Amino acid sequence: MAHDCDVIVIGAGLSGLAAARALEAGGADVRVLEARDRVGGRTLNQSVGERPEDVVEVGGQWVGPGQNEVLGLVAELGIETYPTHTDGENLFEGPGGRLKRYSGTIPRLNPVVLADYGRADARFKRMSKKVDPEAPWEHPDAEELDGLTVDAWIRKAARTKTAREALALGIRAVFSVEPADLSMLHALFYAAAADGWDLLVDTEGGGQQDRIVGGSQLISLKMAEGLGERVTLSSPVRSIRVEEDGVILGDMRARRVIVALPPALAGTLLYEPALPSQRAQLTQRVPMGSVIKCMAVYDQPFWRSDGLSGIATSLPGPAQVIFDNTPANGSPGVLMGFLEGRDARILGPAPEAERRRVMIDTFTRLFGERAANPRSSEPFSRGCYAGVPTPGTWTAYGRALREPVGRIHWAGTETGTRWMGYFDGAIQAGRRAAAEVLTAEGAQTPAPVA
Amino acid sequence: MAHDCDVIVIGAGLSGLAAARALEAGGADVRVLEARDRVGGRTLNQSVGERPEDVVEVGGQWVGPGQNEVLGLVAELGIETYPTHTDGENLFEGPGGRLKRYSGTIPRLNPVVLADYGRADARFKRMSKKVDPEAPWEHPDAEELDGLTVDAWIRKAARTKTAREALALGIRAVFSVEPADLSMLHALFYAAAADGWDLLVDTEGGGQQDRIVGGSQLISLKMAEGLGERVTLSSPVRSIRVEEDGVILGDMRARRVIVALPPALAGTLLYEPALPSQRAQLTQRVPMGSVIKCMAVYDQPFWRSDGLSGIATSLPGPAQVIFDNTPANGSPGVLMGFLEGRDARILGPAPEAERRRVMIDTFTRLFGERAANPRSSEPFSRGCYAGVPTPGTWTAYGRALREPVGRIHWAGTETGTRWMGYFDGAIQAGRRAAAEVLTAEGAQTPAPVA
Repeated sequence: MAHDCDVIVIGAGLSGLAAARALEAGGADVRVLEARDRVGGRTLNQSVGERPEDVVEVGGQWVGPGQNEVLGLVAELGIETYPTHTDGENLFEGPGGRLKRYSGTIPRLNPVVLADYGRADARFKRMSKKVDPEAPWEHPDAEELDGLTVDAWIRKAARTKTAREALALGIRAVFSVEPADLSMLHALFYAAAADGWDLLVDTEGGGQQDRIVGGSQLISLKMAEGLGERVTLSSPVRSIRVEEDGVILGDMRARRVIVALPPALAGTLLYEPALPSQRAQLTQRVPMGSVIKCMAVYDQPFWRSDGLSGIATSLPGPAQVIFDNTPANGSPGVLMGFLEGRDARILGPAPEAERRRVMIDTFTRLFGERAANPRSSEPFSRGCYAGVPTPGTWTAYGRALREPVGRIHWAGTETGTRWMGYFDGAIQAGRRAAAEVLTAEGAQTPAPVA
Repeated sequence: MAHDCDVIVIGAGLSGLAAARALEAGGADVRVLEARDRVGGRTLNQSVGERPEDVVEVGGQWVGPGQNEVLGLVAELGIETYPTHTDGENLFEGPGGRLKRYSGTIPRLNPVVLADYGRADARFKRMSKKVDPEAPWEHPDAEELDGLTVDAWIRKAARTKTAREALALGIRAVFSVEPADLSMLHALFYAAAADGWDLLVDTEGGGQQDRIVGGSQLISLKMAEGLGERVTLSSPVRSIRVEEDGVILGDMRARRVIVALPPALAGTLLYEPALPSQRAQLTQRVPMGSVIKCMAVYDQPFWRSDGLSGIATSLPGPAQVIFDNTPANGSPGVLMGFLEGRDARILGPAPEAERRRVMIDTFTRLFGERAANPRSSEPFSRGCYAGVPTPGTWTAYGRALREPVGRIHWAGTETGTRWMGYFDGAIQAGRRAAAEVLTAEGAQTPAPVA
């Protein structure tokens, strides 16, 4: 086999570009194939002004202490960071919409609620210290913890409704899924992998401490600049064929390939020969979270003069976590709210005007009438026998199981309503889908489809 | 747009073929595109003799009362059924390998265990009656039940180790996953969709009651025969493009498309425009189960003359559910054992000789020395912010997360061991994957890759 290069990297996000950079440094001839017409993967800058620094990020945006890989790379690339704006008091919107200002990490809540929350929170943190992020499966209770959803754990660990809601809010904020969607083992691992839960949720001293001057996509843009023509955009890879002395991706041949895609995307490629069952299963069991970042742009960050940091937490939501997302040079003023998990699932399919209305309403409740008229607001959304829905799937997505999508209809035994998983359900589903098509087409023409 | 046909059905399994058949009957011009070089999807006959009826099934095989769609179709196609062999006593291999013969549904167990099992079993059945299979999400406790894994439920519902193991065995037998992998809501729905749990697990009177003369793939073969040239084999569909007046699949145009694939496979297609987020999420959250059917073929079903039915349940396993799978005319004798969930995950990647050894060992423990020398034995195996593994994923598949597959390496923040889900984890993972490649290539050539 004549090779076009040594290594092909699939995906020009941070991970793929960092891989390519390291390969190049090691003397390998590398190519990066990116499906999109841009680099950066789940980072993307959005201009909110005329200066090059007037950007906000549609995707991931923060860096923080302990994140030595990214901090080192940022320094290496000559990129600067600046602290997330935290000066001023934070806001907490409690049950029933009661608004409280507070300083520090935790708002003043009802003492019973606070004690209830505190006990659960402390217990979670103690538990997370016992998980080895290199091998979470080796925890003595790994199986039990992996078979216990965070939702079921919260119901046991906290007794008050408000404490449970606050714990769920934390899960949404960190994972952008519902507590029913993940296991305790994963949640504990995730905290352990970040040197503790506090680092996951904190701004100062935590994962949200610092921002990138020029926007986080700049990291990828600079790496891609260094790689030059080795990066090819708009080149989606759809299959990987492995032969004795190399890999074939479309019309390109290389010795090896690095798949720098999330498992759920990696699972959409056709592999020849087929992947081992363990890997094939894995890619089916790591679904993406759901999040919509919503930003409202104002001439100035007016809340700052009210003594507010712009950081807010809201139990009523639907945006439950809000930040001052103003660029480094202090204008324009940007408020950013996250719709996460449940809230993204509900508001994602809603009309854009509805998302806009809901977000402006939230910002106005929290920061007053001046929040009602942003210069612009930008809602951005990006994320055998038979199939067995993972916990949480039925309530969150069950309605989408059979509903046709325009000209696409769904059959298969998983869409049967009797004997699902059996021949009978398969046939019922096939016929139902057929009937849908006939009905839909029949509505357009008086005679049968022909 | 000039259409090549009215409707394209993707997938020539039972569901797709039944859809095509119904479309044709409705006057539509239909095409079925099948990726494999055969029809039948998850049904596949395997010859075990010279006569055409001497077949066993590698995939799904049974039909039973209440499955009116398939029973009606079978009759329509002139196919006959015959009862699964149940004459004689069943075997139960308990903890420590104690072997018991029994008649009826339930073996004689320790009364404490039996009462413990019985209470949980009865409670499950009562609960399942309250789930509407058309809309499981409407159950008053839908969210709590969907956030509770069957594993967590079993730990609460049963107190003895043996009862818990027996309950888990039932889940494996029905779902081919581990109790940690599915929610109570799904388990209850599944039972409700089958007119009750008993019908899912029973042979006589239940879902395993009858078999298909000539093998279950015959149903698809006969439907395909009727459809003739409308079915095209070896035509994998990789993308669906929707335009205003139709759909485009490769070089074919049609008005509509029916995707008769399990959600996990449907999720591997490229959709233009992109699917709505709800649907896109769904396809990521319904992973396939894991099962290996293992059959040993003997000249005769010798166990029958020992007064044994060939039906056995084994707690030690690894094959926990065993059937007499002899074809309709009584020979050759076939014993069939299921490796399901955990057992398929462990033994699937093992060498074939190891699976063979384990299975022969199980059959010999249960049916005596004559089981030690089968004529042949056939192991068949078919089956945002960041990715969040579904419950059960870490313990079962975590080891596959970073391990390279031959010339394929894995990066992405989901494979990071620090700050997984963050930039830092992404970069760490990319570098680690790069290092793997450099090391692997370095082992073959003394100089850096070039």
